[in-house]
Amino acid sequence: MDTVHEVVELSGHIIDSWTLPRAWDVIMDRGGNFDVEEMRVGATKNETSYARVKVSAPTDEVLDLILSELQQLGAVLLEPNDVHTAPVEQDGVLPPRFYSTTNLQTQVRLLGQWVKVEEIEMDVAVVITSDKKRAYCRPMHDVKVGDEVVVGHEGIRVIPYERERERESFAFMQSSVSSEKAKVLAIHEIARQMKETRARNGKILFVLGPAVIHTGAGRYVAELLRRGYVQVIFGGNAIITHDIESALFGTSLGVNLESGEQVEGGHRNHLRAINAIRGIGSLDKAIETGLLREGITYEAIKHNVPMVLAGSIRDDGPMPGVISDMIEAQKRMRNEVQGVEMAIMIASMLHAIATGNLLPAHVRTVVVDINPAVVTKLADRGSFQAAGLVTDAELFLRELLDVLS
Amino acid sequence: MDTVHEVVELSGHIIDSWTLPRAWDVIMDRGGNFDVEEMRVGATKNETSYARVKVSAPTDEVLDLILSELQQLGAVLLEPNDVHTAPVEQDGVLPPRFYSTTNLQTQVRLLGQWVKVEEIEMDVAVVITSDKKRAYCRPMHDVKVGDEVVVGHEGIRVIPYERERERESFAFMQSSVSSEKAKVLAIHEIARQMKETRARNGKILFVLGPAVIHTGAGRYVAELLRRGYVQVIFGGNAIITHDIESALFGTSLGVNLESGEQVEGGHRNHLRAINAIRGIGSLDKAIETGLLREGITYEAIKHNVPMVLAGSIRDDGPMPGVISDMIEAQKRMRNEVQGVEMAIMIASMLHAIATGNLLPAHVRTVVVDINPAVVTKLADRGSFQAAGLVTDAELFLRELLDVLS
Amino acid sequence: MDTVHEVVELSGHIIDSWTLPRAWDVIMDRGGNFDVEEMRVGATKNETSYARVKVSAPTDEVLDLILSELQQLGAVLLEPNDVHTAPVEQDGVLPPRFYSTTNLQTQVRLLGQWVKVEEIEMDVAVVITSDKKRAYCRPMHDVKVGDEVVVGHEGIRVIPYERERERESFAFMQSSVSSEKAKVLAIHEIARQMKETRARNGKILFVLGPAVIHTGAGRYVAELLRRGYVQVIFGGNAIITHDIESALFGTSLGVNLESGEQVEGGHRNHLRAINAIRGIGSLDKAIETGLLREGITYEAIKHNVPMVLAGSIRDDGPMPGVISDMIEAQKRMRNEVQGVEMAIMIASMLHAIATGNLLPAHVRTVVVDINPAVVTKLADRGSFQAAGLVTDAELFLRELLDVLS
Amino acid sequence: MDTVHEVVELSGHIIDSWTLPRAWDVIMDRGGNFDVEEMRVGATKNETSYARVKVSAPTDEVLDLILSELQQLGAVLLEPNDVHTAPVEQDGVLPPRFYSTTNLQTQVRLLGQWVKVEEIEMDVAVVITSDKKRAYCRPMHDVKVGDEVVVGHEGIRVIPYERERERESFAFMQSSVSSEKAKVLAIHEIARQMKETRARNGKILFVLGPAVIHTGAGRYVAELLRRGYVQVIFGGNAIITHDIESALFGTSLGVNLESGEQVEGGHRNHLRAINAIRGIGSLDKAIETGLLREGITYEAIKHNVPMVLAGSIRDDGPMPGVISDMIEAQKRMRNEVQGVEMAIMIASMLHAIATGNLLPAHVRTVVVDINPAVVTKLADRGSFQAAGLVTDAELFLRELLDVLS
Repeated sequence: MDTVHEVVELSGHIIDSWTLPRAWDVIMDRGGNFDVEEMRVGATKNETSYARVKVSAPTDEVLDLILSELQQLGAVLLEPNDVHTAPVEQDGVLPPRFYSTTNLQTQVRLLGQWVKVEEIEMDVAVVITSDKKRAYCRPMHDVKVGDEVVVGHEGIRVIPYERERERESFAFMQSSVSSEKAKVLAIHEIARQMKETRARNGKILFVLGPAVIHTGAGRYVAELLRRGYVQVIFGGNAIITHDIESALFGTSLGVNLESGEQVEGGHRNHLRAINAIRGIGSLDKAIETGLLREGITYEAIKHNVPMVLAGSIRDDGPMPGVISDMIEAQKRMRNEVQGVEMAIMIASMLHAIATGNLLPAHVRTVVVDINPAVVTKLADRGSFQAAGLVTDAELFLRELLDVLS
Repeated sequence: MDTVHEVVELSGHIIDSWTLPRAWDVIMDRGGNFDVEEMRVGATKNETSYARVKVSAPTDEVLDLILSELQQLGAVLLEPNDVHTAPVEQDGVLPPRFYSTTNLQTQVRLLGQWVKVEEIEMDVAVVITSDKKRAYCRPMHDVKVGDEVVVGHEGIRVIPYERERERESFAFMQSSVSSEKAKVLAIHEIARQMKETRARNGKILFVLGPAVIHTGAGRYVAELLRRGYVQVIFGGNAIITHDIESALFGTSLGVNLESGEQVEGGHRNHLRAINAIRGIGSLDKAIETGLLREGITYEAIKHNVPMVLAGSIRDDGPMPGVISDMIEAQKRMRNEVQGVEMAIMIASMLHAIATGNLLPAHVRTVVVDINPAVVTKLADRGSFQAAGLVTDAELFLRELLDVLS
Repeated sequence: MDTVHEVVELSGHIIDSWTLPRAWDVIMDRGGNFDVEEMRVGATKNETSYARVKVSAPTDEVLDLILSELQQLGAVLLEPNDVHTAPVEQDGVLPPRFYSTTNLQTQVRLLGQWVKVEEIEMDVAVVITSDKKRAYCRPMHDVKVGDEVVVGHEGIRVIPYERERERESFAFMQSSVSSEKAKVLAIHEIARQMKETRARNGKILFVLGPAVIHTGAGRYVAELLRRGYVQVIFGGNAIITHDIESALFGTSLGVNLESGEQVEGGHRNHLRAINAIRGIGSLDKAIETGLLREGITYEAIKHNVPMVLAGSIRDDGPMPGVISDMIEAQKRMRNEVQGVEMAIMIASMLHAIATGNLLPAHVRTVVVDINPAVVTKLADRGSFQAAGLVTDAELFLRELLDVLS
Repeated sequence: MDTVHEVVELSGHIIDSWTLPRAWDVIMDRGGNFDVEEMRVGATKNETSYARVKVSAPTDEVLDLILSELQQLGAVLLEPNDVHTAPVEQDGVLPPRFYSTTNLQTQVRLLGQWVKVEEIEMDVAVVITSDKKRAYCRPMHDVKVGDEVVVGHEGIRVIPYERERERESFAFMQSSVSSEKAKVLAIHEIARQMKETRARNGKILFVLGPAVIHTGAGRYVAELLRRGYVQVIFGGNAIITHDIESALFGTSLGVNLESGEQVEGGHRNHLRAINAIRGIGSLDKAIETGLLREGITYEAIKHNVPMVLAGSIRDDGPMPGVISDMIEAQKRMRNEVQGVEMAIMIASMLHAIATGNLLPAHVRTVVVDINPAVVTKLADRGSFQAAGLVTDAELFLRELLDVLS
């Protein structure tokens, strides 16, 4: 009954990483069938495995669907063609059959050569240079008339993310999201990875939500900045506003961070903080004039750590430095994300999800939030590489700093 | 020891609404003292009460703080002065001692007359027209050089929100946020109020999150639109994208809404939906050409119901119609909020908080979410007028529509 | 280097059910290695597959560990021995190497025959009758001196639970726990399964928490009882107390279920309800005398539906009928669980977990709670067979009844 | 129209504690009216205030209801009578109009004297000794034929819990339950109170859930025991089982507490731990023989700290020392609760609620859980005296120990 077929190869840690069974699952879920023509299991953990599988399906359409899903798992056709492209005919609009990326390392076949797709991120298009030598990612709104965009599924190779058995200590955080686990262990492991990353001069990105300031944990982030553990910060209007509020008035949302008491008239302090910086013109000037003398923003500027602050519809102000246009803010985030090796997202949902969308799968990502729903939401997206920690942001940062000292 | 004092009057339902005890609390918390010079308790529930209280404090500063807080409770000085103002000297920057609004109805004293502040909302400034006849709200970033802005606390009268004993059925939802309550009762009450609001031609605002579409409940909102129960919609890129995705492909986030199954290749459907509308140019054209034939967006456009869609940093696309600039989006929301009498916020956090910031306290607000943290966060802000319902958005909408039929 | 090995067979839907890859994972995680000696993949979905795998390990201990874990996946040694046993030497104490059950159907080899273990449940011991003809489960505290208890891992065969591709509509609820799914679809599917179960005269168990009464949803359960959809009820002191409270006084925790208002003095009503039934002597007498005329308890007694009510340390009273001794209560639950084919657990955590521990894996289990943490906790335990629904208990029951009508 | 009335007096910190406005609220909510005949406000914070209020109502029934509610707020009739009683006529059954206690200090008028009710707890009856000299609490199931039980509302005086302005640092935790607060501040305050309590030789009670062990935080509790900060422990089968499991095998629920990895075969370890202690006969013998050498249970026994372990329906085993009968377990908890001055409840719901029911309102209670719903549920019950901390149990204990050192 099955009338069409194609042979694909899978190689790498396809047993460990469950690539092979997931491939079988895809084939059967979509109504196809398969025959394992050859299979070699790596004798040791460092050796890779190999499988050649003949996939059959009742129709061409089904076979096509199956192949495109197998591709995400790293399957490659035995006899691949060059990638297909179609030109953009309207600015900001993709050709109908555009290929949409994953966050996994990806190659396209150009003039018979496998070429790496640059600046890989999820859910965007791939544009090919006119000389057919390079390929790079472009978000939909950024494509221009004449850009050659990858379409269909031929000539594309995805390098799947492979589970690393050797680094089980990081891996153990990934199994499931729960507050009922030993967090101190996990924090030690995160600290170890931060040190390693910095030892090879890798970039660490922090994504911060305002609860970091409300809980008085801003001081720990400031110290991490001073110690060189933060190379770039993403956040929104709230984190910077309350950081400046705490630097200027000692409060966050009007609560005194030393005594925990609500300060008289303090509910206006965040507006006063924004107004003060707007009045002086910029954050840099606020430091120059001596108005701003401490806090995350202060340390970031002092240490030349870029902060990309993306506004949102709920913002007051906004604070100078916050980007009101979302297209522009995404662009800035895309630029700064290049080269990031580790991302630590704390008590943030909106900005953490936005960042997760931009990060390639190989970036070690740690999501810390007291709400398991947030951690699950974020850890689920990037799949293997994100470790979720359901814990208290304030105590996490305090402990992390302690372990790093 | 107390050396300075001032006499204030409080009147209205100050017993029922706990205005009086809260006033006492403020005075003592801030280090002052008081003497009740006269108190008249309304004999029946419809009669108002009156209290004249002499407030004393150790210093002028403390007295000033106390008076400014009492003001929020509706206290008025026995012998009021005109409101004070200061001119804006730099676009988008307020004078240092600017008065920051609450969401309660507010009056300022101009040339000896109490004048209502127009377009009242929370955390903004009050600008006085040059003829000293009118006063209106302005967000910080919108003030211009030369605007006269209210400063200090004199000559300001806040009309506190008073608990209504007569409408206990609505009130019972306000006592506490819990899923362990009879929601069917609450839904009947909400339906009753929606009918009342529409009977007097009042505007009902819906703020919608994407879970409304994911759960297949978009059809109920579409029906509410057809029946005239929705006058304006606020949301983001996600709600409209998945609404269009479901209209075009029958899926939401790639899940078939009829069968609940993940559709092959469906994870791209939201991108395809955005791309299709971008290609055709606009939502209106998508309807004209017959591409878009159903759903919330379709019904909203057909029934001339404005949708204000504010983008966010996590958006793909965005979909045409979504506003990328936050200053612009807030402006549009401010315009559309005028005249709204009832606001129903469902499965939305970001846009619901943004809306809550703009709504005057007298707007009946219902917050529906399955996550009690979201409901608490929203219901807490606007205080008395927001009713929180911890329940399932899909089943809530189904039941609401059923009751309204 | 690997010096010991053993050959095992796996058969059944081992591809679909991920049995094979999980087996590989176990082998490699525990430090062993494997060689696929033979593999046959079923040509169609109804055909089973087969694999013969040679497992090697560095030591006997590791091989033993691997084999015991493979056993849980259904692996059987090529040349099996009879099961090993050891006698109980102290009442309520097991022999050191006792085999601890899973909730999967299990067989033991006795005199060369595979014999089914009766009354299977999780985390208990298996006792063999003296004639070596039968095997049954016994909790630790119930074993007596002289009982022959299964030890080690030889001669045991676990029949793994296999994913059913045909019943995807139920399966789709199992993929992940989220409130962002179409619950109405799921409720239709649950209703369909309830009808099927009843059509073949199968038993349906309801486990109920007190929120069912607090939300006014007791009436829907009462109606399900009248319609014959409930064959046994598990719960605690709270559900019955508030059920009787609502039948006697129209309140639950003092809140009037018709109006939603707190009733004067109503906080005592649950104590009055308990006291009234204690005074009259029993629930049966309360019905006989006409004191109790409606509600879940009333309908359960009228329709001879057994209620097992297990007390807890937080109980007031307790209500007559509630079992204060936990050993006794578990015994009653174990008895009533026999023959149950479907279990619906609503807004209960303690009693739902207790029930989950007792249910064999093949019982269709639906867990309904508004708190995703509860649903995850429960759905995780029993693995494949539990479907979690994050939704509102009240609206779920209302909709379920509606669909069943 | 109001035809009946009564005059009541309120005194104490009735302004600060919002007693007076709550009294007004009660009167008006129930359909009565009032006239403030005299009011004296304390001139300083240490002085008390006084109010004499004439309460009127349309009927005797309404007046009665109002007076009984005012009583809970500390109101006393101007001309009080002796308390009324009725005899118990059936063991375990109260007279119909029995008075049900609050957890506030309470007095009854016997032979013209105000006598303190001993062993006060919530939701129980008050029994008067035959010589009418003493009064004490008794749970419903414990009353015997012939006991004289307080009925109605006359002759009862409740001493309301008064907010203490001086101890704002503790108070600030009470305002609302949120993870967005500075927990380190709160932990310092808790440590200070623990030291104070121990300095005056007061008892500190810990209520512990199993997550304390799962997260590896058992070591911190063991250290607190060694340092004399724990005088009594409440918990269940799970906490002790996993504590013993970790002492014997280094795991909790099979997870190695040093490495965070799942141990081979470890899912049985909790059963093995129970079986081992059952085999040896008792916890004391396990220590004597050297089997048990560390952990919470070990330290508790070594330091003569009583542990009351109440079983539940979900328990395996149970572990020796766990009480299976709930009536018996409550009795033991009631005994040990006497004299407790501070209660710290960590990651426990069932046992924490049970404990909360037994604690008088004046016991300083701290509820620590990562789930805000649990904290709210517990902090709500006991009203003013419970401080809720939404944070990570493991990091909380680590920090607390650190601060106490």
